[in-house]
Amino acid sequence: MPAVQTITWEGALSGHARLIEQTLLPERTEYLDVRDVPGMVDAIYRLAVRGAPAIGVAAAYGAVLGIQNETGRSVPDLLRHLDEVCSTLAAARPTAVNLFWALERMKRHAAAVAGGCADGRALAEELLAEAQRVHAEDADQCRRMGEHGAELIRDGMTLLTHCNAGALATGGMGTALAPMYVAAEQGKKISVFADETRPLLQGARLTSWELNQAGIDVKVITDGMAGRVMFEGRVDAVFVGSDRIARNGDVCNKIGTYTVAVLAARHGVPFYVVAPVSTFDAATDSGDLIPIEERAAEEITNGFGRRTVPEGVGVYNPAFDVTPAELVTAIVTEHGLIERPNMAKVEALLRQAGAMAPAS
Amino acid sequence: MPAVQTITWEGALSGHARLIEQTLLPERTEYLDVRDVPGMVDAIYRLAVRGAPAIGVAAAYGAVLGIQNETGRSVPDLLRHLDEVCSTLAAARPTAVNLFWALERMKRHAAAVAGGCADGRALAEELLAEAQRVHAEDADQCRRMGEHGAELIRDGMTLLTHCNAGALATGGMGTALAPMYVAAEQGKKISVFADETRPLLQGARLTSWELNQAGIDVKVITDGMAGRVMFEGRVDAVFVGSDRIARNGDVCNKIGTYTVAVLAARHGVPFYVVAPVSTFDAATDSGDLIPIEERAAEEITNGFGRRTVPEGVGVYNPAFDVTPAELVTAIVTEHGLIERPNMAKVEALLRQAGAMAPAS
Repeated sequence: MPAVQTITWEGALSGHARLIEQTLLPERTEYLDVRDVPGMVDAIYRLAVRGAPAIGVAAAYGAVLGIQNETGRSVPDLLRHLDEVCSTLAAARPTAVNLFWALERMKRHAAAVAGGCADGRALAEELLAEAQRVHAEDADQCRRMGEHGAELIRDGMTLLTHCNAGALATGGMGTALAPMYVAAEQGKKISVFADETRPLLQGARLTSWELNQAGIDVKVITDGMAGRVMFEGRVDAVFVGSDRIARNGDVCNKIGTYTVAVLAARHGVPFYVVAPVSTFDAATDSGDLIPIEERAAEEITNGFGRRTVPEGVGVYNPAFDVTPAELVTAIVTEHGLIERPNMAKVEALLRQAGAMAPAS
Repeated sequence: MPAVQTITWEGALSGHARLIEQTLLPERTEYLDVRDVPGMVDAIYRLAVRGAPAIGVAAAYGAVLGIQNETGRSVPDLLRHLDEVCSTLAAARPTAVNLFWALERMKRHAAAVAGGCADGRALAEELLAEAQRVHAEDADQCRRMGEHGAELIRDGMTLLTHCNAGALATGGMGTALAPMYVAAEQGKKISVFADETRPLLQGARLTSWELNQAGIDVKVITDGMAGRVMFEGRVDAVFVGSDRIARNGDVCNKIGTYTVAVLAARHGVPFYVVAPVSTFDAATDSGDLIPIEERAAEEITNGFGRRTVPEGVGVYNPAFDVTPAELVTAIVTEHGLIERPNMAKVEALLRQAGAMAPAS
């Protein structure tokens, strides 16, 4: 089990969200109390909280933060205000489908229960309860992904992961790292290579930190070394998370994931993507259609408190890439595996999970 | 033409070598005067001077530094001393074949001329002249590699390179970057993506700096982005240097090069290696036999004046990797191209260049 909880809600209504300030890891473990919507947008944008599922949980709590001090309004007025709050939160990061998913769920729940709410306070209570359900379901999904994924891990295996799709990225034990935590619980001895994951070093700072805290053997490599360790025959499987999966199984994830997938294919190393059903975007037919967030040049030019690129030299900083479904061995979800994913298999799983209407 | 000279010899005998202190780039342009063998070993080990051909030139001057203040010795005694000096210099970096090549050349020259030297001073003069020939020949070879390589570059192309194999890495205009400089001289408009090249960021700090100084359009990307820019169809060719090429055409180069080669193969992007004949190691049959230098953990854990990997977490830090010949479109040498390299073609070129005995 991971030794860390990324996000909690402190108190009841009129409480606040508490986040691990991930930008300070691994040097310092500090918590950030977020009490309003601008604070949550800032936390999401700055990557103080990051990882698709954790962003979903944070956004749900963000919606509560946006309405809990406005309970003097009428229910219809509060519903309109919730729409504005959700629009503000949705703009924090354009690629994170879980962000939109969680906000839509909050709005849908509000609309469903509004008729039975005597006043704004009752609606706010409903929304806090819904956000807490989003959080609890996320933790439960992580555990189930971990159990499905652990079946792919044998005793003695060495795994490679990119970025951080662990406890720090979710409301539970993670996505890509969940199978590792469950495998370790089952007594399997595993080792992990963590790509450091430039520019923001989530692998070096976060993945290695949480695995090490949980007593799992982990070594950090630079992103350019993933090819070498596979060439040396030292990697048995790759596990990564995802920020959005298109209907055809194309996987959008942290920049550098595609490179790892190409390397894994060349070396015959299984490439597993671990993601909950909420990460699938049935409205997007293929990965080509996913907008790729381009982030600030400074992440590359002075990401370490020191200028590493000369003044006057440009950079290109896409935050994500798309791995075509053909390079994915299987997608591990809370409802089981999609092996060799394609559109038909994704649709079948989404229908089974109730996340898509049955075929007509 | 590059706007920079990496290494010069200042004065005549009893002078010293002057190097650009590359560890300070791009923030500061400072020069390092190296006056003795420990100073040169330190400069090579710290990567104040780096890049296979520049290391060869530095080592040749290092040999001069080691004997120029010992000219009171007899010629045979000085020859023995030269052997010791060369052993000390050779230990500075285990993977750099040019280092050994340059030192062997210095010893061979000393042995050849010793009989005609009246005293130690005359031998030292001979060795300084030989080191200066090593340097001048390197500059000439760079120009010739640049001319051969520029034939592969068409107007409007976008190229990708890894690490720094430019003017900063040689006694001349570079290896991988030489075709770019010559293409620019020919009026071809080119753009370059420079992989930042973790852990030591030679691409971000050095390649972008020297290309930008020469007026060539360059953008820095993190190593994990090379796959994405190829996926976007934005790369027309890859040019990299090499630290050692085995007899079968396997290419040892900066860690991360193999990953770029695998990506290039997947995308049908030509992958060119630019290296002088002195980089070939005819005594090593294949890349598997090349020892890979493993460097200090701190390059990964706190390479930027800030700790990025938690205390207690291990790293793996191979400085080089091996790209199998099958992934190499062509090796560009000062004697022309070896297309689709294999052992027979490498041997033919080395014989043509006089670097290997004719087949018996």
